[in-house]
This record gives sequence, structure tokens and C-alpha cells, in this order.
Amino acid sequence: MTARRLDGKDLAASLRAQAAEAVTAAAAGGNAVRLAIVIATQDESAAWYVRSLTGAAARVGIECDISDLGADAAPGRIATELARLSADPKVNGIILQTPVPAGATAAELAEVIDPAKDVDGANPVSLGRLTAGLPAFAPATAAAVVRLLDFHGIGLSGRRAVVVGRSAVVGKPLAQLLLARDATVTIAHSRTPDLAGVTSEADVLVVAAGRPGLITAAHVRPGAAVVDVGTNASDGGLVGDVAAEVAGNAGALSPVPGGVGTVTTAELLLATVTAAADQKNVGALR
Amino acid sequence: MTARRLDGKDLAASLRAQAAEAVTAAAAGGNAVRLAIVIATQDESAAWYVRSLTGAAARVGIECDISDLGADAAPGRIATELARLSADPKVNGIILQTPVPAGATAAELAEVIDPAKDVDGANPVSLGRLTAGLPAFAPATAAAVVRLLDFHGIGLSGRRAVVVGRSAVVGKPLAQLLLARDATVTIAHSRTPDLAGVTSEADVLVVAAGRPGLITAAHVRPGAAVVDVGTNASDGGLVGDVAAEVAGNAGALSPVPGGVGTVTTAELLLATVTAAADQKNVGALR
Repeated sequence: MTARRLDGKDLAASLRAQAAEAVTAAAAGGNAVRLAIVIATQDESAAWYVRSLTGAAARVGIECDISDLGADAAPGRIATELARLSADPKVNGIILQTPVPAGATAAELAEVIDPAKDVDGANPVSLGRLTAGLPAFAPATAAAVVRLLDFHGIGLSGRRAVVVGRSAVVGKPLAQLLLARDATVTIAHSRTPDLAGVTSEADVLVVAAGRPGLITAAHVRPGAAVVDVGTNASDGGLVGDVAAEVAGNAGALSPVPGGVGTVTTAELLLATVTAAADQKNVGALR
Repeated sequence: MTARRLDGKDLAASLRAQAAEAVTAAAAGGNAVRLAIVIATQDESAAWYVRSLTGAAARVGIECDISDLGADAAPGRIATELARLSADPKVNGIILQTPVPAGATAAELAEVIDPAKDVDGANPVSLGRLTAGLPAFAPATAAAVVRLLDFHGIGLSGRRAVVVGRSAVVGKPLAQLLLARDATVTIAHSRTPDLAGVTSEADVLVVAAGRPGLITAAHVRPGAAVVDVGTNASDGGLVGDVAAEVAGNAGALSPVPGGVGTVTTAELLLATVTAAADQKNVGALR
């Protein structure tokens, strides 16, 4: 058996087309759509990600401002920049790129991001609102996982979903999105003793652990849908958290690259045009 | 076999003694500790709960203000009252009693509660901060469950924990607290098809479904610890979500009444004195 490929490219293209259409409509009304990215790291994969995001934004007509504060930026300096961007009516979306400098805490800094511009759901208030069932931007990666499953017709209601990874930017918000879709959700992590036993319970297994090859065939119930959120740099390029052999027993498997990551970038663009439209409506009401 | 009783009375007494000591210390410094409760329902069990809480507060020396806005209070009226209390420097803790009137949303109203006074962790920002690992008040019931397990020496790290119930006030924040203690956490709910199969995986099973007798012996792995968060009114008084027969195969079981509920009230008192101390420190720094 070879797993069905949960490809993200067509889905991402369709999301980008939606975003481009919204940008064109905004432009017709005399409004630009603008995304600000704050970066304070020299991490290579972060730099790669920002280049890829700004390129994708440019192609749909979203203007990007990059505030590169340097890897030794003080937390206060980063917070000041996030506050400035939050107050700038020309800026529609704000992303704080991780990692942040030692001594800073991403979630704490993100509290300065206006929730209406928090297109990557990094502000804890967005996470709290999401959890409480109130409107909020979800972290783009978490949103991309659910969107990819929907696109490929993989049901969630009443299914067992297992999320490997408990970060506040992927695992935890993803668990909330899966719960909202009526899945029974288990969160496993680095301290889970019998990981293979737990992941084998999954109808839908989502892996966001950041450990290449963590999930082998022994971790996957035959026929399960597996979504690989891992983006690990290797000599051979980007690799996920799921070993290649899993394609032999999973029912469906998302590739790395070309799966969740591709959709994530498109989700951010779509969230930015959504934010811009919402802000314009609020502005019109005032 | 008869399950060990996870009694909450001694623990609650010890928490109340801590709270009373803190109130005495505050009084020695000329400061009262004050808890405000906003109520906008004629629900009988809510009224019972508020009486029980104000009684417990009085016994440790915490002053209680009750704002009874009536069951037909408009959401805006409730929000205004919460804002007034948030701004009042004499008020240290604020609780919005549920249920709220039809047309109002508790989580949305709770966004008006100053997070520093949000002693029952009802503001989504508290939930988000808790989830992100930042300091925040947890909902008192969720905190009480973990405190009760700790008190009785029931380990969480590396264990399978199953939470039945996905409310934003109990199930979801509790899952976060259990995750923070390195349990592998599953959240089951009313749409979980094979509930007994899922709950039987638990080393620690916490039930917060609000359905009397939902959990039977068939739902519990022999020897598991079971915490009953249910508080259902019945002709025979308060009953939990766990059937009596579970005492026959569980290793440990919390009673209703006398278990989590007792500890929850004490948690709220302790959170209120903690809030008062923190506010005093912040005040001193200004």
C-alpha cells in the first residue's frame, strides 16, 4: 500500500488566488494591504522562511515591511516596534518571527500585537479567544493543518486525533481547532513514555515535534491519515518528522516539502487580507 | 476492592488556613482583601454556590461584594459593572457567576475583567496566558483538580490523563494544567463515539461533563484514579458524573460532595489573597 499524498500545492494556489483577488478589490477602493514582519534573529531557517513569505506576499500584491532588529535586540526594543506597528493604521498584519533573542519570550512580546492584526495568532489573547470559541486568528500552521485535511476530504468529527507536540504555536492551538471540529484529541509530547502506543490510536495523526524521523511505521495504525508539520533542515534539504517508510502503511500522508508548509504561507496571506478587510469595516463604522 | 477516597476536606481546610493567614497579614498592614461577585441569573445552584462562597470568604476574613444585576441584565450592563470593579482599587478579585443571561457570552463579558483580578481565570487572556506558559490565574475548578491529585500523591508526569468535557471553564484549562505536568492528555466529549474505550486508557480520569452517572465501571481501567467534577442537583442532593459502582474498580475516587468542589471554593479564596498581594506589590513599585 502507498499512502495517498496530501499535497498542499493546489490548495495553497487556491488560497493565494483568493488573497490576490481581495488585494485587487482593496486596491480598487484605494487601499493597499500591508504585512509587517519583525525579525530579531540570525537563524538561517527563519531568514529562509521570511524570504519565502515576502516573495509569496509580493506575488499576490501584499506589501511587506521587514523590521530587522538584529539578534541582540533587547526585549523592550522589540516590544516598542510591535507597539508602533500595532498603532500604525497603514499596517494590517503583524508577524513576530521566531526565535526571539535569549532573555525574551515570544508569547510575552506577542501580547503587544494588536489582536486585530495578529495574523499568526501569536498573542496569548488570540489563543485564549480561540480556546473559548470566540473569533480570533489561529496560528497559520494550525489553521493550515485543518484546511489541508478538509481539502482532501479527511473527516474529523468523532475521529481520534493525536497531536505530537505541545508548543503554544502549533500543538496546543491545533488541538483546539480539532476539538472544535468534534474530534477526540490526544496531545502527546517528548515526555510521553509509549509514544508508538499513543500515536497508534490515531485516525488522524499530526506530528509537530521538530525531530526528523520521529514517527516510523510502528507509530501509525494502518490506514491512518498522517500530517507532517516538521520542517527540519538536513543535508538533503527540508525533511519532516515522519520517516519515509510511513508511506507504506498510512492511508494518507502529507509531504515535506509541499504539504503543510506551503499552505501555511498561503494562510498568512489570507489572514492578512482578512485583517485588512475587518479593519476597513471597523474604520467605516467609526 | 474499594477505591481510596480522594477527600478534599483536609486540603480545603489547609488552603483556607493559608488564605486566613494572608488576610491577617494584610489587615496588619492596614489592607482589607475584597472579592466582588457579579451575578445575573436566578439559577438556584448558582445562588447556592454564591452563598457557599461568600460564607467561606467571610470565615477567612475576605470581604465580599455582590452585584446582583438580575436575570434580565443586558450584556452591556454586566460589562459596565465588571469594568467598574476592575477599575476600583479596593477590589482585589472579581468573579462573574455563570450562567449569564441569554444573549450574553460569559467568555466575552469576562474580557472586561482585569487579568490581575481574574481570580477564576474566566478572561480568555488568562486562558491564553496559561496555555502559553505565562503567569495567569487558572479557573479555580481546574486548579482544584490538580491540587487534589497532588495532595493525595497521584503522579501525573508520563501518565495517561483523560478529561471528559471540553468547556472553556473546566475541561480545556484543566488539559493545559495536566500537560504542564507532563501528562499525555486526551480530551473526550459528548461527540466521542466510544467513550468507554477512550476513558479506559486513563491512568487519571477527570470527568467534567455535567451528566449524572455518565461514567460507570465499564469506563474505568481497574486501579485508575478518578476525579469527579460533576455537580448535578438531584432529589438526593448533589451528585457527580461518576456512578457509585466505580468505587468498586477504581484505585482512587474523589467524592461528590466533599471532593473537588470543596477545594474549588478554597482555591478561589487563595487566588483572591494572592491577587491582593500582587496588586499591593505592583502598587508599591509605582
